[in-house]
Formats: sequence, structure tokens, C-alpha cells
Amino acid sequence: MFEWLKRLVVGRPLRSDRLGEQLLSKRIALPIFASDPLSSVAYATQEILLVLTLGGLAYLYLAPWVGLAVVALLAVVVVSYRQVVRAYPSGGGSYEVASRNLGPSAGLVVAAALLVDYVMTVAVSVAAGVDNIISAVPALNPYRVAINIGFVALLTAMNLRGVRESGRAFAVPTYLFVVGVLSMIAIGVGQTVLGHPPVAESAGWQIQPEPAQVGLTGIALVFLALRAFSSGCTALTGVEAISNGVPAFRPPKAGNAAKTMAAMGILSITMFAGITALALIADVRYAEHTCDLVGFPGDCATDAQRTVIAQLAAAVFGGTGSFMFFYIQAATALILILAANTAFNGFPLLGSILAEHRYLPRQLHTRGDRLAFSNGIILLALVAGALIYMFDGSVTRLIQLYILGVFTSFTLSQIGMVRHWNRLLRVEPDPRQRRHMHRSRIVNGLGAVFTGLVLVVVLVTKFTHGAYLVVIAMPVLFVMMRAIRAHYDRVAAELAPDPGGMVLPSRIHAVVLVSKLHKPTLRALAYARATRPDTLTALTAAITPEEVRQLQLEWGAHDIPVQLTVVDSPYRDITGSVLSYIAELRVGHPRDLIAVYIPEYVVGRWWEHLLHNQSALRLKARLLFQRQVMVTNVPWQLDSSHADHRQAADLRPPAGVAG
Amino acid sequence: MFEWLKRLVVGRPLRSDRLGEQLLSKRIALPIFASDPLSSVAYATQEILLVLTLGGLAYLYLAPWVGLAVVALLAVVVVSYRQVVRAYPSGGGSYEVASRNLGPSAGLVVAAALLVDYVMTVAVSVAAGVDNIISAVPALNPYRVAINIGFVALLTAMNLRGVRESGRAFAVPTYLFVVGVLSMIAIGVGQTVLGHPPVAESAGWQIQPEPAQVGLTGIALVFLALRAFSSGCTALTGVEAISNGVPAFRPPKAGNAAKTMAAMGILSITMFAGITALALIADVRYAEHTCDLVGFPGDCATDAQRTVIAQLAAAVFGGTGSFMFFYIQAATALILILAANTAFNGFPLLGSILAEHRYLPRQLHTRGDRLAFSNGIILLALVAGALIYMFDGSVTRLIQLYILGVFTSFTLSQIGMVRHWNRLLRVEPDPRQRRHMHRSRIVNGLGAVFTGLVLVVVLVTKFTHGAYLVVIAMPVLFVMMRAIRAHYDRVAAELAPDPGGMVLPSRIHAVVLVSKLHKPTLRALAYARATRPDTLTALTAAITPEEVRQLQLEWGAHDIPVQLTVVDSPYRDITGSVLSYIAELRVGHPRDLIAVYIPEYVVGRWWEHLLHNQSALRLKARLLFQRQVMVTNVPWQLDSSHADHRQAADLRPPAGVAG
Repeated sequence: MFEWLKRLVVGRPLRSDRLGEQLLSKRIALPIFASDPLSSVAYATQEILLVLTLGGLAYLYLAPWVGLAVVALLAVVVVSYRQVVRAYPSGGGSYEVASRNLGPSAGLVVAAALLVDYVMTVAVSVAAGVDNIISAVPALNPYRVAINIGFVALLTAMNLRGVRESGRAFAVPTYLFVVGVLSMIAIGVGQTVLGHPPVAESAGWQIQPEPAQVGLTGIALVFLALRAFSSGCTALTGVEAISNGVPAFRPPKAGNAAKTMAAMGILSITMFAGITALALIADVRYAEHTCDLVGFPGDCATDAQRTVIAQLAAAVFGGTGSFMFFYIQAATALILILAANTAFNGFPLLGSILAEHRYLPRQLHTRGDRLAFSNGIILLALVAGALIYMFDGSVTRLIQLYILGVFTSFTLSQIGMVRHWNRLLRVEPDPRQRRHMHRSRIVNGLGAVFTGLVLVVVLVTKFTHGAYLVVIAMPVLFVMMRAIRAHYDRVAAELAPDPGGMVLPSRIHAVVLVSKLHKPTLRALAYARATRPDTLTALTAAITPEEVRQLQLEWGAHDIPVQLTVVDSPYRDITGSVLSYIAELRVGHPRDLIAVYIPEYVVGRWWEHLLHNQSALRLKARLLFQRQVMVTNVPWQLDSSHADHRQAADLRPPAGVAG
Repeated sequence: MFEWLKRLVVGRPLRSDRLGEQLLSKRIALPIFASDPLSSVAYATQEILLVLTLGGLAYLYLAPWVGLAVVALLAVVVVSYRQVVRAYPSGGGSYEVASRNLGPSAGLVVAAALLVDYVMTVAVSVAAGVDNIISAVPALNPYRVAINIGFVALLTAMNLRGVRESGRAFAVPTYLFVVGVLSMIAIGVGQTVLGHPPVAESAGWQIQPEPAQVGLTGIALVFLALRAFSSGCTALTGVEAISNGVPAFRPPKAGNAAKTMAAMGILSITMFAGITALALIADVRYAEHTCDLVGFPGDCATDAQRTVIAQLAAAVFGGTGSFMFFYIQAATALILILAANTAFNGFPLLGSILAEHRYLPRQLHTRGDRLAFSNGIILLALVAGALIYMFDGSVTRLIQLYILGVFTSFTLSQIGMVRHWNRLLRVEPDPRQRRHMHRSRIVNGLGAVFTGLVLVVVLVTKFTHGAYLVVIAMPVLFVMMRAIRAHYDRVAAELAPDPGGMVLPSRIHAVVLVSKLHKPTLRALAYARATRPDTLTALTAAITPEEVRQLQLEWGAHDIPVQLTVVDSPYRDITGSVLSYIAELRVGHPRDLIAVYIPEYVVGRWWEHLLHNQSALRLKARLLFQRQVMVTNVPWQLDSSHADHRQAADLRPPAGVAG
């Protein structure tokens, strides 16, 4: 049943040697790795406007400048990361750059930052996608969170099936979105040039200003502008995804990845600039709280305002009933929800690299049936789903937790790149190469300065709005990963084989546990005898004198050629009595091996377990803590165990005690 | 930590040989086994009045007759059960009588009925006790359910500590209650004789009649009277508890038990008759829904009406502020809550007998640290707590599910007793003995007829009010117990030793599973070699060619004297690959034994388990289903496993896989 369901969702298992087939062409890699930065133009403008109109419409004049700053930053970061892709084509990305050049601790900080940000990418992108669906079909507003969770589940299932199939599914909507948005921008600009600029449905509305934000001057005004800039920087998230995904490209991997990154950067900048310009032309109004909108036609307590991109599509293409409005909304929703896939590619890959370096549990390095890192995919889905649930699927609330991590990793990796060039310059004699390196160092240096400044701005402007959660989460992750690494190192040192090699025990004492005289017991005795131990004891614990007498009678009647030893158990604690017998034996024979044989019978149905004591399990767990002891289960398969054991065995505890 | 908490609640373990000390004197046995019937006088009268006033005050004239019928029935049942105690002093009670005389199926019906009723005894008694606490302190009404659950937990803890200690705790309040109620009746009757009859606080209130119950005549009137009688029969519950508890009495067990039962019967009848008479004299009004009371001073939606016994105590002793009012309420609440203890004594005992007869899981026959049947106690508490929670701790709603089971068992056991005397009369020659038996047969015959009639009345009048749940639960329990017995019988037949005895396997093939070359692997190889198997294989599954090559290199470097065998695992499913290797081995050597050695390392902290694959557990579970296979765990104890393993071992899964 479970197996059948798994096959339905995940598909048939793939052989390990099919791993090489899963490489991506540029045409497929662009939508997979660039859907995040491309799609974020759908909400970056909106989040800028939302902050600027906190104090009413008075500060909207700042919007073009904020937009320009974001565009400039985007250009700097894309150019910087093309250097990273060429210098470190192994797919370690920012993590590798930071750890190689700034030491393992810096790498781990970057890793913690990226893990947090991958989670936020899923949460924010899915929430924004659902927002755009609701803009087209407002009746779905009450089911917002459920729809969000449903999409996360769908993405999880797609990714568990493996990377290439999900890539194909993503190519079409990404291109549809790019074509749709570029057409919308072209037509809107054309209308403006022809003297009929588009007018948004919200153009006439007023916005109730927050009292604290009215009449700002000086530092307070700068702070508001910086806060809007911080929100706009969400357009930069996911730029580094390509640098983490280089090994998934077809050869020449680094070259193809760098070209893909350039294409992505140009598209991103064009679309973001176009949408921001159109939004200002069409007088779009967007408020954090719907009830602050004076003129909003619906019930502001239950209805949602349309997203900025939805308002633009309606204004440019002739209303919310037009075909192109639905086309834009569908493409936007699809690319946003699929943008979350960037994280579903990046998170498990980074997790597996960290697990390989023993900073995360090794299960994250295991490939599933379909060659995907299944555990990482499931972990990501669980955490992102929980965040969406906690924040009611609100983009504006989730976005406060976003991009802090991205800019941490941007800054550290750019600093790392500067050191990388410094190191190479120390040994490079060729003047042409040196010129090239000097240029690259300037690019990365500028990148480091800008992203570092933005990091400070983001931290300061978003801290109290939710970013403090990330400020807590990142160090916790960092410390946890260090602790995991320390554990694995300690275990490895403890388990390293001695030069001596194998040491055989002097003698073997076999102890067969007996509760009743039945076939499992006889089989255990036979098996124990067959190993020819130096001593062989049949051991039983006395709960009541009658039971012992009965057992001794049967023992005699069956002519068992092994002496029955009875240990007292005055407190009815079989486990304790057996353990103290074994402990005494150990003290008496410190160089010998004690082999404990436990007869068990194996039942086939789950409820049958309830009918048999589980004391064997407990005894086994305790015996494992004793040195010089090995524990042998001698199973007796009851008829019921054969009916369906193949399907069910994984779901059951191993066996009941024979008694 | 868990151990410490358990000791705090349960106390130190007791030795099995202290079991004999736990016998009860009559003075202690009376409160233990008779607190249920004695305490039920606190609500039986109230439930009669409640039904009779469904149609307003018009039918109250029926109350004395209903009360008399209950008294007569109580006398018949007590006399009948004295016969049971003398005839079957082994403590099987109704269950034993029915199974011996009417066959095992009848016995099982009785058992199912009693199990249901023990649960209801706990639920109803605790709920009624809390009702009386709220009568004294009305402010507690919002916390009704929480207080109920708290008392169930307290009773559970007390009973887990063992029978005698709980007995002492119960003796005092039972006697306080008896003395208090008898004084209240005496004083109240005295006041009436002197011409100043007590007047209840509700004497002037009117009751809103249910439209369907107005102006009843003929069969409808009889039905109402019978419904009131059914509710009053709750006074009879727990009468059989003494017959189930005979072995707990000091010798002469049967004689002491019969005397205790007589004392209980006389006290019960006196108190029930007295309270009913006083309630009628004082004009107590009590309605199912508080809002039906015209004249109720509080807010009928949130406040609760005072119980009948509370109203009487206030009327007789001079108001709700008097000392004696609080004394009566405290004693009533205490005895009611402790009456639930009858079930905490009876249910685990019956469960243990049924488990001994293999009708219930054998865990119910295991005595805990303090010699009580802990599992039965915990099971009872869980089910009763759930019922209280489901029915909001309402006595009137819970009581609908009550006494159906009791009268099923009364009727069947009395029929069984008639057959018992018939059988004895067939062989008894002594005329004096025969006369005695004839008399006994008449007593039990009358008992059977009366209780059978009441059973039908209860079934008919209460079915739609909730008793249908019991009508469903009893057959389900019955079928379940039959299925459990069938399972145990099947297993016993399958496991019965053959006359041949032990059959040694021809040869032993040892297979040591290897994932890495470290100390646990070397130890497993050494142990496997020490058992001198006929063949010895070191088996590893190939996930990636690099890992295999690395392992082979180390293998050569350490000069391991065992050949390393590699099985391909193209789908990365180690469990499956190892299983097919073993299966092939089995087919090739059908008469041999295959010993699989699994090196494990044992960690000490719970989170360390998360860092190691649990695939060894899964592999072991699957191997247990293979014939001719035994599985040996060779543990390697990491340093962290020694810090605190004694406390924690029970709480942990056994071990992570070494690899």
C-alpha cells in the first residue's frame, strides 16, 4: 500500500548509472535556475510601492530612484557572479568560494545563510504565486493557505521524480512569462508614447497614511527610502542559484553557466525596470493593509487587493475580463510557483555537499529511487510549508525574513573572490592574465562593497519587522552544523581500526534465553549448539515458582541435552535479572565472548504485535550497551508472517518475544 | 528522568513474595468493594426525580413506588449474590458462574458486559463526585471536565501503588459518608416528626414540562415510570464487585465476603430509602436542563443546579453555609470519587483472569512493580477519561450508558446459579443439604427473573438515550476476545514442540555485513570467525564504484584474512541487495543455517541517532522473515553510550548502523 503510493508519486526507481543523463542544456537550465530572479519582478515593484506609501502618496517621488538603485545593484551582482561561475565550476558556489578563501567557518556562515534563504524562496514565491491566482479569481481568497500548501506538495512530488523531468515542465511557463511581460511593457510604453497611458483600477484611490510616517524629513526620510530599497532587493534573490548548479550544465559547464547568467541578468533588469516604470505611469496604489485604501470597492476585511502586475495587465490589455489579463496572471502564477523550484534544486544539492563534508546528517547525501536527494527535498518542503502556515501565506509578512541570508552570502563570497584574485596574482607571471585578474578583482571588490552595504541596510530596516527571526536562525544553524561535524569526527577517530587488526576472543559462552519450551526455543538451542560454543546455558527467569516447575517438567520430558539454569526474578523484571546474570558472567571471564540467543516468533499482522510482550526488544536494547556481548535473534516465522511480509515488513517493529 | 518520575508516582518495586501480605480485613474490604453501591445513593434518587419531572410536577406521585421497586430489587440481588460468593470463592464472580454453568460463550458475554460497566463506574462516579464539589463551590463549574480528569489521574496513581495502601485511604471517607448520611436522615425524619419538615431551596420552583411528556396515560405513563426505575437501578451497580474480590479477603474468605455483602446491602437500602423519602418530604426539584427550572436564581446557561443530596444537606442542617453542609458534600464527593476505585480494583482483576484464559492480551496478566495489574489500571483510566471528556462530565448523559452491562451479567450469572444447583441436586443424597439447595435455587431463580425483566426494561427505556452505544460495544468486545483467543490457540498449536526435539543444521554459513572498515566491522569479523563457521563471507553492497575501490584498498592494507564479496546495488537499495544475496544462499543450501552478523555502534544521546542511518534496523526486520537465517548484532559501544545508558536505554531505539 505505502509502496504503491510511493511508486505513484515518485515513479519507478532509476539505476545509479543513469545519473549522467540528467545534464541540462542552456535552454532548460535558464528556466530552472533563473525562474527565481525572473519571477521576483512580479512582487519586487509592489513591495517598493507598499513601503513608500506607508505615509500616504507623498513619498512616491522616491520610487524611480529606489528602482534605479535596485537595477544598478542587480547588474553589479550578476557581473560579480559570472566570475564565481568561471573560477569555481564545481557547483560549490558561494559556499565553496567562502570556505576556500576565508576558511571553513566563513563557508559555514554562507551555508547557513543559503539554507535559510532557500526555505524563504519557496515560501515567498509560492505565496506570491497564489496571490496572483487570487487576483484573477478573487473567490479563492478564503482558501489561500490550503492552496499554498497544495502547491508545495506538488513541487515536492515533482522534484522527488528527478531533476530533468521537472526541468522540462518548467521551461514553457518561464518563457510564456517572459514573453507576456515584455509584450505588456512594450504595449504599455507604446500607449504612453501615443498619449493614451494605461490607468490602473486603483489610480483614483487614496491611502490612509500611518501617523508615524507623515511629514518625514532628514534621516527618517532616508530610512523610509532604504526600507523600500531593501524590499526591492528581493529582485536579486536566486542570482547565485546558477553558480551552485554548474555541474548540472552540459559541457563546457562554466561557459554555458556564465552565458545563462548573463541572459538572466539582462532579462531581469529589463522586466523589473519596465514594470516599475509602468506602475508609476499607471498610478498603481498598493497598501500593506487593504483597509488603508480609501476607495477600495470590496469588503476590505475579507477581500484582497489585486497585485501590481495584475493591475498593470488589466490597465494595458483592457480590463480584468480580457484574455491577455488571464494570460499574464496564469503565466505569473506559474512562474512564481515554479520559481520555488530553484530552491528545490539548490537546497538538496547544498545539503548533500554539507552532508558530504559531515556538517549535516549523512541521510541528506543519499540519493533516492529517482536519483534526487529525496531527504533534502522533503525537509525543505516541511520547513517552508510550516512557515507559510505560520504567516498565513502573506507575501508582505514573509518577505521580511527574506534576502538577509542572500546578502550575507553575496558579501562573503565577493570578499572571498577578492582574496582568490590576490592569491592568484601572487604567482601569476603573464602580464595579460594579470591585467585580466586585476579587472576581475575590481569587479568583485565593488560587488563586496555594495552587497555589504545593502546587507547592513537590510539588517537595520527589516530587523524589527521579522528579520530578527533569521538573525536567530542563522547562528543556530551554524552552531548545529559545527556540532554535527564534531560528532562525526569524534566517532570516526574512535572507530579507526588499530594496527593490530582482528583480536579473536579466548572462549565463547552461549546463553539461550528460555521463556517456554516450544519450537522457537528448540531452534535457538539447536543453532546455538551448532556454533560449538565453549559453554552452553539455557537461561530462564523465575517469575512464579509454578511456572518454573512446569518448565522443568517439560524440559525433562523432552530430554533436552542442555542444563536449564534458573535465575530468580523477585521483582518480576526479566530484563534486569538476565542483565545481572550476563554482567556476572562478564566479570568472571573478561577476555571471553558472550553470545546471547533470543528465540523470537515473527507475526504477520500489525495487531498481532499487541498480543505479545515486547520485552525482547527492551532486553536487546539493553544488551547492546554491554561490552563483550553479541545478541543473536533466532526467528521462528509463524504462518501469518508469510501472507504479506514483503509489503509490510518495513512498517513493523521487528518481532514479539517468544514466550 | 522517566524512571525517577515513575518511582515518585508508583513507589519502590515490591518483591513477588510480598503478594500474600496484600489481603484485606472486612473493615477495609467494605469501603473498597462497597463504595460503589453505597455512593450511588448520592445520585440514584436524583436520576429518578429527573425523569419523573420531565413532564412537570404532575407525575411525582410515582416516586415512592419507583423507590420501593429499586429497594426490593436491591434486596433480591444482594441475597442472590451471597450465594455466588459462597459457591464460587475463587474470585471469578459472575464470569466464572456463567462460563462454568452456561458455557464459555456466556462467560465471555458476562465478561464483555462487566468490562464496559467497570469503565462506566469510573466515569459516572467521578462525574457525580465533581458534581457535588461544584454544588458546594459553584465557582468551579467552568473547570468541570478538567477536575474530572484530574481525579481519574489521581486514582490511577493510587492504584498503581498497590491495593492495600489504596484500601486504607478509602476506609475513612466511606465511613464518614455513611455516618453523615445516616445522621442527616435521622435528623431530617426527626424534624418531620416534630412538625418542622426540612424545606429544599428548590421547593418553590416550577419545572417547564417537555410538551411530549404532558398528560401521559396508560402505556406512556408506565413507560415513564419504567424509565425512572431504570435510572434508579444505578443504585445496584457494584454489588458484584465483592464476588469478584473474594480472594482479596482474609480467610475464611467466602464467609467474610458474604458478611461484608450483607452489611453493604443493609446500608445501601437504608440510605437509598432515607434519601428518597427526605427528597419527597423536602419538595426537592431537579431537572435535566437547568433552564427548565422556573425560579432558578442563577444564569441557567452557565451555572449548575445543586445536587439532590446537597439540597437536602442544606435543608436539614441550616443552609449552604453550615459546617454540616460542607461535611456532607465533602464526604459525598470523596466517596463518589473513591467509588470509582471499585472499578480500579475489579477491572484489572477481571482483565488479568481473561488474559490468563487467553481472551485478552497477556500484558494484562503481568503484575507491575507494586504487584498491581498496572496495564489494566492504565487502560481503564484512559477509556474512562475519554468518555468523561466526550460527555463533558455530565452524570445524566453518562448514566444512560450505565447498568445495561451490569444487568446482563446479573441475569446470566443468576441463570448460571440455577443450573449450578440443578447439577448439585442430581448427585446430593443428604436431605438436609438438599433442602438448603432447593432454597438457594429459589433465591437465584427469583434473582434471574427479576434481573432479566429489569434488563429488558433498561434496554427498552434507555436505548435511544445513549445505551445503543453499549449495545454496540459489548458484541464488539465479545468478538474481539474470541479472535484473540483464536490467535493464541493457533500460535500455541503452531509452536508445540515436535517429538523429534532439536534438529541441528548441517552446516553454518556466516555472512558479515561490511559498510566501512572500522573497529565494529573488525569485531564482527572476529566474533564470526570465533564461532568456526563452515564458510565465512564479508559482504558489502556497491553504491558507487569509488566507495568499493576505497574499501578494497583499505581491506588489502589491513591484511584482513577474509575475502571481501561485493554485491551490486544499482538502485542504491542496500537492504534489497543483501536480501537477494541471502535468498540465493538459502536456495543453494536448503538444509544449512545462515548466520548474518551486523556490526553496529551504540550511541548515547538521542540526537546522535538522527546522525546515523537506520538501515540496519530495516534490514534486521526483513531478515527475520527469512527461514534458516539468524541475525547477530555485534555492538560497538561508543564512549558517549556509557555516560547515562542505565537510565536511558529503555527510551531509545537500539542502535544506528555502523557505516
